Amino acid sequence: MRNKLVKKRSSKAGLPPGTLVHIGERHREAARVSIIVYDENNITDQASDNLAACATMRGQPGVRWINVEGIHSIELLQKLGECYGLHPLVLEDILNTDQRPKREDYGDYLFIVLRMLSLKSGGEGVASEQMSLILGPDFVISFQEGLAGDPFDPIRERLHTSRGKIRSLGADYLVYSLMDAIVDNYFAILESVAERIERLEEELVDNPSRETVGRLHTLKREIIFLRKSIWPLREVISGLERRESSLVREETVIYLRDVYDHTVQIIDTVETFRDILSGLLDIYLSTISNRTNEVMKVLTIIATLFMPLTFIAGLYGMNFRYMPELNWHWGYPAVLFLMLVIAGGMLKFFRGKNWI
Amino acid sequence: MRNKLVKKRSSKAGLPPGTLVHIGERHREAARVSIIVYDENNITDQASDNLAACATMRGQPGVRWINVEGIHSIELLQKLGECYGLHPLVLEDILNTDQRPKREDYGDYLFIVLRMLSLKSGGEGVASEQMSLILGPDFVISFQEGLAGDPFDPIRERLHTSRGKIRSLGADYLVYSLMDAIVDNYFAILESVAERIERLEEELVDNPSRETVGRLHTLKREIIFLRKSIWPLREVISGLERRESSLVREETVIYLRDVYDHTVQIIDTVETFRDILSGLLDIYLSTISNRTNEVMKVLTIIATLFMPLTFIAGLYGMNFRYMPELNWHWGYPAVLFLMLVIAGGMLKFFRGKNWI
Amino acid sequence: MRNKLVKKRSSKAGLPPGTLVHIGERHREAARVSIIVYDENNITDQASDNLAACATMRGQPGVRWINVEGIHSIELLQKLGECYGLHPLVLEDILNTDQRPKREDYGDYLFIVLRMLSLKSGGEGVASEQMSLILGPDFVISFQEGLAGDPFDPIRERLHTSRGKIRSLGADYLVYSLMDAIVDNYFAILESVAERIERLEEELVDNPSRETVGRLHTLKREIIFLRKSIWPLREVISGLERRESSLVREETVIYLRDVYDHTVQIIDTVETFRDILSGLLDIYLSTISNRTNEVMKVLTIIATLFMPLTFIAGLYGMNFRYMPELNWHWGYPAVLFLMLVIAGGMLKFFRGKNWI
Amino acid sequence: MRNKLVKKRSSKAGLPPGTLVHIGERHREAARVSIIVYDENNITDQASDNLAACATMRGQPGVRWINVEGIHSIELLQKLGECYGLHPLVLEDILNTDQRPKREDYGDYLFIVLRMLSLKSGGEGVASEQMSLILGPDFVISFQEGLAGDPFDPIRERLHTSRGKIRSLGADYLVYSLMDAIVDNYFAILESVAERIERLEEELVDNPSRETVGRLHTLKREIIFLRKSIWPLREVISGLERRESSLVREETVIYLRDVYDHTVQIIDTVETFRDILSGLLDIYLSTISNRTNEVMKVLTIIATLFMPLTFIAGLYGMNFRYMPELNWHWGYPAVLFLMLVIAGGMLKFFRGKNWI
Amino acid sequence: MRNKLVKKRSSKAGLPPGTLVHIGERHREAARVSIIVYDENNITDQASDNLAACATMRGQPGVRWINVEGIHSIELLQKLGECYGLHPLVLEDILNTDQRPKREDYGDYLFIVLRMLSLKSGGEGVASEQMSLILGPDFVISFQEGLAGDPFDPIRERLHTSRGKIRSLGADYLVYSLMDAIVDNYFAILESVAERIERLEEELVDNPSRETVGRLHTLKREIIFLRKSIWPLREVISGLERRESSLVREETVIYLRDVYDHTVQIIDTVETFRDILSGLLDIYLSTISNRTNEVMKVLTIIATLFMPLTFIAGLYGMNFRYMPELNWHWGYPAVLFLMLVIAGGMLKFFRGKNWI
Ligand SMILES: [Mg+2]
Ligand SMILES: [Mg+2]
Ligand SMILES: [Mg+2]
Ligand SMILES: [Mg+2]
Ligand SMILES: [Mg+2]
Ligand SMILES: [Mg+2]
Ligand SMILES: [Mg+2]
Ligand SMILES: [Mg+2]
Ligand SMILES: [Mg+2]
Ligand SMILES: [Mg+2]
Ligand SMILES: [Mg+2]
Ligand SMILES: [Mg+2]
Ligand SMILES: [Mg+2]
Ligand SMILES: [Mg+2]
Ligand SMILES: [Mg+2]
Ligand SMILES: [Mg+2]
Ligand SMILES: [Mg+2]
Ligand SMILES: [Mg+2]
Ligand SMILES: [Mg+2]
Ligand SMILES: [Mg+2]
Ligand SMILES: [Mg+2]
Ligand SMILES: [Mg+2]
Ligand SMILES: [Mg+2]
Ligand SMILES: [Mg+2]
Ligand SMILES: [Mg+2]
Ligand SMILES: [Mg+2]
Ligand SMILES: [Mg+2]
Ligand SMILES: [Mg+2]
Ligand SMILES: [Mg+2]
Ligand SMILES: [Mg+2]
Ligand SMILES: [Mg+2]
Repeated sequence: MRNKLVKKRSSKAGLPPGTLVHIGERHREAARVSIIVYDENNITDQASDNLAACATMRGQPGVRWINVEGIHSIELLQKLGECYGLHPLVLEDILNTDQRPKREDYGDYLFIVLRMLSLKSGGEGVASEQMSLILGPDFVISFQEGLAGDPFDPIRERLHTSRGKIRSLGADYLVYSLMDAIVDNYFAILESVAERIERLEEELVDNPSRETVGRLHTLKREIIFLRKSIWPLREVISGLERRESSLVREETVIYLRDVYDHTVQIIDTVETFRDILSGLLDIYLSTISNRTNEVMKVLTIIATLFMPLTFIAGLYGMNFRYMPELNWHWGYPAVLFLMLVIAGGMLKFFRGKNWI
Repeated sequence: MRNKLVKKRSSKAGLPPGTLVHIGERHREAARVSIIVYDENNITDQASDNLAACATMRGQPGVRWINVEGIHSIELLQKLGECYGLHPLVLEDILNTDQRPKREDYGDYLFIVLRMLSLKSGGEGVASEQMSLILGPDFVISFQEGLAGDPFDPIRERLHTSRGKIRSLGADYLVYSLMDAIVDNYFAILESVAERIERLEEELVDNPSRETVGRLHTLKREIIFLRKSIWPLREVISGLERRESSLVREETVIYLRDVYDHTVQIIDTVETFRDILSGLLDIYLSTISNRTNEVMKVLTIIATLFMPLTFIAGLYGMNFRYMPELNWHWGYPAVLFLMLVIAGGMLKFFRGKNWI
Repeated sequence: MRNKLVKKRSSKAGLPPGTLVHIGERHREAARVSIIVYDENNITDQASDNLAACATMRGQPGVRWINVEGIHSIELLQKLGECYGLHPLVLEDILNTDQRPKREDYGDYLFIVLRMLSLKSGGEGVASEQMSLILGPDFVISFQEGLAGDPFDPIRERLHTSRGKIRSLGADYLVYSLMDAIVDNYFAILESVAERIERLEEELVDNPSRETVGRLHTLKREIIFLRKSIWPLREVISGLERRESSLVREETVIYLRDVYDHTVQIIDTVETFRDILSGLLDIYLSTISNRTNEVMKVLTIIATLFMPLTFIAGLYGMNFRYMPELNWHWGYPAVLFLMLVIAGGMLKFFRGKNWI
Repeated sequence: MRNKLVKKRSSKAGLPPGTLVHIGERHREAARVSIIVYDENNITDQASDNLAACATMRGQPGVRWINVEGIHSIELLQKLGECYGLHPLVLEDILNTDQRPKREDYGDYLFIVLRMLSLKSGGEGVASEQMSLILGPDFVISFQEGLAGDPFDPIRERLHTSRGKIRSLGADYLVYSLMDAIVDNYFAILESVAERIERLEEELVDNPSRETVGRLHTLKREIIFLRKSIWPLREVISGLERRESSLVREETVIYLRDVYDHTVQIIDTVETFRDILSGLLDIYLSTISNRTNEVMKVLTIIATLFMPLTFIAGLYGMNFRYMPELNWHWGYPAVLFLMLVIAGGMLKFFRGKNWI
Repeated sequence: MRNKLVKKRSSKAGLPPGTLVHIGERHREAARVSIIVYDENNITDQASDNLAACATMRGQPGVRWINVEGIHSIELLQKLGECYGLHPLVLEDILNTDQRPKREDYGDYLFIVLRMLSLKSGGEGVASEQMSLILGPDFVISFQEGLAGDPFDPIRERLHTSRGKIRSLGADYLVYSLMDAIVDNYFAILESVAERIERLEEELVDNPSRETVGRLHTLKREIIFLRKSIWPLREVISGLERRESSLVREETVIYLRDVYDHTVQIIDTVETFRDILSGLLDIYLSTISNRTNEVMKVLTIIATLFMPLTFIAGLYGMNFRYMPELNWHWGYPAVLFLMLVIAGGMLKFFRGKNWI
């Protein structure tokens, strides 16, 4: 099924800024919260929704990563907001799940919004989920809409096994890692879309059917949505890379440049898809025109061949009493010969026009 | 009914700048003025058009919000202008109701023009009304063209119940609230337009008719007008957010950033609509081509099948005296068989061309 | 008649810069010069071409406005040029009437070129005339190509009646007033073009004919010329407004901002026209496709219905001696019945395809 | 004949920078060198290729203009290069005749590349020649590919007759004069192209033929090349005008601004041509569609009229023994009447559809 | 065969940054390493993959150029990386062979990525290979994917024969030389593409067939890829030219400006190709429309001519007992004459419509 063009948010009209209303679909029953606290030496991982210990937790050494899956529990959000001093406008944006990617600096923390894409089951079609990130000096909070699965398992594993530099670098490196995982995932999406485009390309050349143009439109629409999800990301990351906030450390910049580079590459590819799809429609239309032309030629050849002959036959089918030819002995063969001559002339004319 | 492309303003040609002439339709009989004065502790609300007390009112504590519905009373505007020291060019622009969104700094006050959109009764079509705002140090004056209804009732209610921060912040926050209400309303417009686009999309795939292309054009036209109304708003708000005027306070900036963000999201959505609509026309055209092709095939198959047969029948309907076949005992069955062979050959040819 | 794409200027090739050659049509017999001198208290107006007093006039108090209608008199231009110290390149540009709007600073004076538009008699088509302005510290010289009429009569009247501020402000305000009159006049042009577009829109939906596409092209062409005439004006005025020359006084800026604003609004409208016209062609093409499709259906229905029947009739019109059916008593009614069945089947088939 | 899309330069691949290889066609047998030396009082003109005196010539008073026609003599170029200290990369670029317009500062001298356009004999088609200019403190060297003729004769004459300021100003003014002559020549090219576009416009409306679309494509292609030749010139001249090199004197700037202005006007006109041509194809396509539609209507009217009648005639041409109508006395007139009724009904149906 | 739209890289998702995984095809069995060390007086050249001497090699006088063909040996890359202190992210990018051209400054060295293009065997189609360059103070490392051949043989030769300045200038000049060779090679690619476009242009005008549109699409697709490969190069080189890194010496800048200029010229040409191809499709479509129109005319002429005649013949083939005309002596000749009159009228009608 196609993605909706917009999400219903009229229920929010007129409410004061910072009013918490969930906009979007509810993807899971209860929200799930997981808290990972780590430094170079230790790591603890708890899947709980008991946020009571919040106050005491702040100020402890190490980096805390709080991942929230399913954001419809407004109470939970408010608790987290109080504990980490988040602005009501931030909480509101987390709940409004049709945000475009953006980065907002609130001084003590950065608020980042991304779109997390995944292939719909069945393989055709791309689902989009809002991913909100809070980057504090020693904590990261991530909010997912709650679609099943996320691309962060390899990061969790690296945290536990302490592979790579992830444990020795700060919260900003964790945010980089999350963003990198999301962007890496875009490549998988692009691979799938590319395959569909290539299949369509072959279909168009070999045997375009009526459904082809529908599939073309669906692909175009998806690419419009991909563009909308990915284009603004470029600026989000380039702002981080330029260290516009002091929460981003010098040693993370080189990694942000890498993910920025990937983003540009992805955008380039999406533009390529766009250009190719727009060319495909032109092929389709000219194939249809060609076919109509071919059908017309067959019709014209047949009609042009048989209409004069049928007329002649009709002529000698008339019942006039005085038609001298009818009584000629060689009348019938002569008419047959005349018909052959006419048919031969017609065929020559068609050959001259390159129609046969 | 479609919106007019331009409003008649030729009557104004040659008049000196600052001449007050109302350009646009008169939407209500008499102008209605309401004045709300409030500070953190008190609020008074009077629906009156007695502006006599103007001079004494200025300089009192608290914030004053003067809302004018229906702007065709030039006298009223002049009184307000004198009282609040508004430049004649400002009054002139308020009366010329085909302004594009803009922000002008007159030192003592800011002049802001927005477009207020609403759905026409019947649900299809978007009406547009000019909304002019004056932001002074402790007053806000809003001018509406006077179409029935406005999206400000929730703000009035918040002012009276003192919900949110609205009573404790200044005139600039009130202006933000008005702009936010207008922008929130755009989302409702977009929802309605999105629904119509999606209906059209389905109609095009399922059963495009002659009216479809007319509806497509109407939607395209509306989106051109939406763009024109919304695009310039982006710059208007970003200028406020950058605090180019000292009338905007530090604490309001964070809220302006929020409404700016919504504006960008709305613009993004309008562009998406544009791209999708432009794709829909292509689908329509290829569907029509496809249909013509299909009709042609039916015609060609029938003609190609029956023309040779009819010719043969005509041949043996000729009245020549000496036609030996006519006297053969098996002549008739032989001709029928010949006809069957020809028809079979034709059908095979069509199958080879994938026409049947 | 359509406007020419370019004006002949090959006669000028190779001449040294500043050579005075008139390029364009000669619109009136003799040039007409009018000189208005005014300050807050006095005003004199003389329609004369006696420029002898030039030398003594310079340095007198008040503002002088010299308006020249018809620029083909090179002698006159040279006299004016000497008297006011105009650069030969300025005089050359005044004579080359296919300039695009521009603003050039010659230190002592500003040279401004605008396009003055008017509706051709008959109402369809826009004529364009070059208007060159010299703004000195206390004088304004305006050069018109000499088409009948100009939009400056209200300004002349205001000067004489001293209405508005025009007499108390300087030469720069007079230049503003002239530019404002020209831009106000653009609105009238746009109204006329908008009306023609709307008529075309209705015609396309109701009853497109062969001439429609020609009219569409004429409108497109006119809008291309409008764009070319109006777009550069934006930059001309914004440069004045930013006071890049000291000849523009502080108090005039606010008025220049107003006319700048109008220019932007006009450009916006022209772009809207462009977008709508480009959509109209798409409608036209799909209407034609639709009609062809409809015509084809009628043909196919008729052919598909009658070809098999005619074949059957032909079959029993054959003259074979041994055709048993011909002698059956119920042969004729049976064939009629068969024909009815075939026709009914065909009609059902068409209904299944939604053709009837 | 059409211009080639690219010039063969594969022979140069792998050669070290500054290797001198002529790329392009050889337009004349031997190169022709002319040297004009002038100051305010004297002028000498010699058409020679004896460059031996080079060393002694440098440092003499006055301005030297060395014009080289035909650049395939590598020896000559090397001699000039040594004498005037030109960088090998400059010489290489002079020989590679598919450069785009550019300006390069080598400190002691400026290197400028322009495209010199001329109408091909026969009037249709534009030939392009590379013109390379070296501007030193007191010398100008110009290199032409060697097509017959150049637009500099008026400059030579002005130099000899000392008309205008050309003799009293420096080498930079000479460069300006050359560029001005080239740009003036562009106007002549545009006039010729405009005429062809206008002829095509009329042809399309009156009587489009199969060749029309070919001519349209040829014009489009030429305009693509015009754009490519002229667009970069704008930046070349604006850099000179901004006096990025000290070789350009203050008093020349005002003249450069003039030629810059012409360049912008030319670019504007080329863009107008582009927009109009792109509209013309749309007209062509809709005219063809219209015609096909008209042809189809004629066919459908004829077929729809005669097929039922022919069927009825066929019906009563059947040879069944028992066909009661055949024996009715008024059978024949009744059938004729029935046929008339059917034909009348059909014609009414066509009129209802507005087909006749 | 067409190039793939994207390269499979999903295997990399989730891996920490700097993980070395080869993405792309393996073009040769074993990697080949060649090391050239040179200064103004000496040069040694060894084709080996023994990198053991790495540590001792660093710090020696002269410039070292290490060329690696075939990058799938991760071990080799790691050894090189350790020896020259390359960042893991650099090694990762070298292995991911679908990078867009870019330049990254790592302080001690620059990392540059280019696309190396070559014609596929058979002449149609362009192969693309990633070329990664490391520029250190006294060394250059180049990594090629390993397609057979490279355009660097002339450079190797110049190094050995000491032709040009290559031996006397530093590592940055070597990088320039490599880039120049690659860009020179682009010209050869463009020549081949230009030839194919020109062949297609002629084919379209003379005798467009069904395959034409497929070829057009293939060319369009290739040009999209060319653009993608070449556009970013412009910025890569302009950054080097502006000496953003101190590894680029003053005396190399003039050469980088030259290769920059070539890049701009190539981009210009690719854009020209794009514009021309987009025009070609329009020609194709209008040619098809024209042909269909012509076919339709033949059909309509034949049908319009013979249908009325056949009807008349059918009329007098009816078997009514009482048909007076049948017994008239001049009945048959009269009907023949009537038929002639009708045919003549039809032909006149067609001539009036300019159909014959
Ligand atoms: Mg793009
Ligand atoms: Mg875009
Ligand atoms: Mg792009
Ligand atoms: Mg693009
Ligand atoms: Mg694009
Ligand atoms: Mg593009
Ligand atoms: Mg398009
Ligand atoms: Mg856009
Ligand atoms: Mg867009
Ligand atoms: Mg967009
Ligand atoms: Mg866009
Ligand atoms: Mg388009
Ligand atoms: Mg298009
Ligand atoms: Mg535009
Ligand atoms: Mg536009
Ligand atoms: Mg625009
Ligand atoms: Mg626009
Ligand atoms: Mg636009
Ligand atoms: Mg278009
Ligand atoms: Mg353009
Ligand atoms: Mg354009
Ligand atoms: Mg444009
Ligand atoms: Mg343009
Ligand atoms: Mg333009
Ligand atoms: Mg287009
Ligand atoms: Mg482009
Ligand atoms: Mg372009
Ligand atoms: Mg382009
Ligand atoms: Mg371009
Ligand atoms: Mg271009
Ligand atoms: Mg196009």
